[in-house]
Amino acid sequence: MKAYIGTRDFLPDDWRVMNYIFNTWRKVSEQYGFEEFDAPTIAMVELFTEKSGEEIKKQLFWFKDKGGRDVCLRAELTPQLARFYVNYAKAMKKPIKWFSIPRVFRYEKPQKGRLREFFQYNADIIGEDNVSATAEIINLSINLLKNLGLTNKDFTIRINSRKILDALINRLGVSDKARFYLLLDKKGKMEEKEFEKELKTLSKEYKILKELFTLNTNELLKKFMELGLDTDRLTGLFRLIDKKYAVMDLSIVRGLAYYTDIVFEAFDTKNELRSILGGGEYNNLIKDFGGEETPAVGLGMGDAVLLELLKSQKKLPIFENTTVFIATIGSVLKDAVKLREQLISKGCNVNMNLTDKNLSKQLSYAQSKGIEKVYILGEKDLKKGTITVKDMKKGTEKKIKG
Amino acid sequence: MKAYIGTRDFLPDDWRVMNYIFNTWRKVSEQYGFEEFDAPTIAMVELFTEKSGEEIKKQLFWFKDKGGRDVCLRAELTPQLARFYVNYAKAMKKPIKWFSIPRVFRYEKPQKGRLREFFQYNADIIGEDNVSATAEIINLSINLLKNLGLTNKDFTIRINSRKILDALINRLGVSDKARFYLLLDKKGKMEEKEFEKELKTLSKEYKILKELFTLNTNELLKKFMELGLDTDRLTGLFRLIDKKYAVMDLSIVRGLAYYTDIVFEAFDTKNELRSILGGGEYNNLIKDFGGEETPAVGLGMGDAVLLELLKSQKKLPIFENTTVFIATIGSVLKDAVKLREQLISKGCNVNMNLTDKNLSKQLSYAQSKGIEKVYILGEKDLKKGTITVKDMKKGTEKKIKG
Repeated sequence: MKAYIGTRDFLPDDWRVMNYIFNTWRKVSEQYGFEEFDAPTIAMVELFTEKSGEEIKKQLFWFKDKGGRDVCLRAELTPQLARFYVNYAKAMKKPIKWFSIPRVFRYEKPQKGRLREFFQYNADIIGEDNVSATAEIINLSINLLKNLGLTNKDFTIRINSRKILDALINRLGVSDKARFYLLLDKKGKMEEKEFEKELKTLSKEYKILKELFTLNTNELLKKFMELGLDTDRLTGLFRLIDKKYAVMDLSIVRGLAYYTDIVFEAFDTKNELRSILGGGEYNNLIKDFGGEETPAVGLGMGDAVLLELLKSQKKLPIFENTTVFIATIGSVLKDAVKLREQLISKGCNVNMNLTDKNLSKQLSYAQSKGIEKVYILGEKDLKKGTITVKDMKKGTEKKIKG
Repeated sequence: MKAYIGTRDFLPDDWRVMNYIFNTWRKVSEQYGFEEFDAPTIAMVELFTEKSGEEIKKQLFWFKDKGGRDVCLRAELTPQLARFYVNYAKAMKKPIKWFSIPRVFRYEKPQKGRLREFFQYNADIIGEDNVSATAEIINLSINLLKNLGLTNKDFTIRINSRKILDALINRLGVSDKARFYLLLDKKGKMEEKEFEKELKTLSKEYKILKELFTLNTNELLKKFMELGLDTDRLTGLFRLIDKKYAVMDLSIVRGLAYYTDIVFEAFDTKNELRSILGGGEYNNLIKDFGGEETPAVGLGMGDAVLLELLKSQKKLPIFENTTVFIATIGSVLKDAVKLREQLISKGCNVNMNLTDKNLSKQLSYAQSKGIEKVYILGEKDLKKGTITVKDMKKGTEKKIKG
C-alpha cells in the first residue's frame, strides 16, 4: 500500500518537527497581535478562478461532486481570506489582523521543495493603508524566522516597490513594461553582460538603470529622490523595520496582476533555495471579490523550503523525551495505573508497561523511546512501600517512598 | 461567494475553541505516553476499499487525478494507520502508541452533528494483546473528556464484548446472529415490549436474555460466569478502569466486520446526542493490510458531537484576551515599535495602533478586541520619559517610566 505521490508521511519524529514549527508560528503571530482563523479544505472552484483566472485550474485538484458542483482542494488561503472578509468583517473594527496555517494542495510535478500537499502559513492585515501595516508584516516575517533560530547570516528580506518600478519605467523611458518585469525576474539567473545587453534594448537610459542595481538601500532611496520619484512609503517603511534583515532589491517582482505596490521575499543568504517566504500589498483583491476598495498586505510561507533551510543550517532543536516510564514486576498493574495518575497530576507524561514482559525487555522498550526516567514497581517493593527509580542515562537507581 | 455545503468557516472566536480542544487532546494523549503522527489528506482509493469494500466509495470524496489514479480525501485515519504500521513499524519496539488529529471528509447529507469535513481525534495501541491496552484506551477516553470539563454527570462509557455476545448466542441458542446484532443496535430506539417480542422470535431462552438487559455491570459479570462464559478479559478490564465512568452495555455493537472483541462508546447521560466517541479491539486489520497478525485497539472522536455537548453543558471556558494594545498620540510610531519589542521580550502579546487615528478611536478598537490593558504613547509623555497605562475594565490610568 503506497501513499499518493507528492505527499508526505509524518512519523512521530517528523511530526514533532512540524508541531515545533507550527507552535513557533503561532507564538510569534500572537505576540504581534494576530488572531488565528481557519477555512475549509474543500472550496468552490470559482473562488480560485475569480482571483487567478481559468488558467489556475491546471494547478488545482478539482472535480465535480456528486451533486454536479465544481469543487477543489484549496491551493492557497488568500481567496478564502477575501471571502471571509467580504462575508464577516463588515461589523468588525479595522484593521483585521489574522493568520492561519492551512494545508494546501497543488497539482504540480513533485520535486525538491515542491509538493502536492503542504502547509502554508499566512498572515494578513486588511483595512489599514498606512505603510506601518506593511512594516508590521515584514517585522513579523523577520521574527517568525528569528524565533526558529535563523539570523541575518541565514536569510535576507528583499523588498521592492511596484510604484517605484512603474515611476522608473516612465522616468527612464522603458519601452516595454512587461519585458522589463520579466527581465527583472530572470536577473538572478543571468550573466551580468547578458542582463546589460537586454537592458540596453529597453531604454536609452540603460546606464542609469544598470547603476541602480549596484546600489545599497540608502543609496537607492537617495537616487530615487534625485530622479524625482515619490519615496515616502519606502522611506517610511525602512524607518520602521530592522535594516539588519531587510534590503531594497529592484529585481523582486512577484505576481504581476495581484500585488499593487510594496512586495518582498526572504531568501537564504547562500542563494541556494527557492524563496522562504514572500508577500506584499494587494489593494484590489477585496474589491475584486465584491467588497469595498480595501487596502491589504500579507505574507505566505510554505513549510518545505523552510524545513530545507532549518536542516541545512542545523537550526532544528533536539527534542528531548520528557516522558517517564513505569515498569512492573509481578501482578502490580492496578498499582501502576494508580501511580500513573499520581505522576500525571504532578505534571508528568507517563508511558507504562501493559503486560507481563520481563524487566529487561521493558527497560529496552523505554530506551528505544528515548525515555530517561523509569519507575520500577515490584510486588516485594510495594509491600515495603517503596519504588525504585532508574536514571536511564546514568544507569543509577534509587529507592523512593511509594 | 459561498463556502461548500457541509463545511465550516472558523472565525478567530470559533477557531480559539477548536485550538482549545486540540490542545487538550494533545496534552492528555501525551500524559498517557502517546505520540502524535500525521498522514496525508489525499490517499489512494484502494486503501479505503481494502478495509471497507467498494461500498465505501459512496461515502468518499474520490476522483481520478490527471494521471488517471483513483484518489480520495481520507474519510478516516485507520487505514492510513495500518499502512504506516505495515510500512514503518517493523523495526520499532511494540506496542506502538500513536495519536493523530486528522481532518476527514465524508460525502454525506449535511445535518446536525454530520458534516462533509470535520476533525477526528484517533488514538491506537498496536502490538499488545493484554487487556490492559484496552483499559488504557478507555482510561484515555475518560480523561480526554474529563480534561474538557465533563464529568460522569455528563457522559458514560458503555462497553460490550463481541466474544461474550457470540458465546451468549451459542449458549442460549439464538437462531439468527445477524438479526440479533441488528436488534441490539436498534434497542435504544425501541419500546420495551417491541424489543421483547423480537427477542422471543430469536431464542427459546429469551427470558434469560431479557433479564440480562436489566442487570448492572457486576450482576452481568456474575451472570456470565453462572452461564459458564469466559469473563477473564472483561473482569480484567473493569479492574483497571474507572467504574464511575464506565458500564457494561450489551446493546453496544459497532462495525460488525471490523471489531474483534471488546467495543465501547461514550454517550451523553441525557441520551440526546449521537455517540461522543467510540472504539474497540480490531485484531484483523493489520493482517488484512499485509502485515502479520497483530492485536490492536483504538478510539475515534469527532469534533462535532463533542462541541454540541460542551456547548449544551456550558463547559466551554471563557477565553480571556491577554493581548495588550499600544495606542499612539502624534509621531511616535517608531517608539511604539520599540516598546512593542520590549513588551514581547517580557512575554506579552502586543497589538498596536498602525496609523493616525485619534485616541478615542484607538481605544474603541482595543475594546472591540476585548483587550484589557492599553499603553498610551504620547509625544509629550515621551519627552518626560513616561507612558500612560490604561486599565480598560476599571477605566483607571497610571503613569509609568518609559
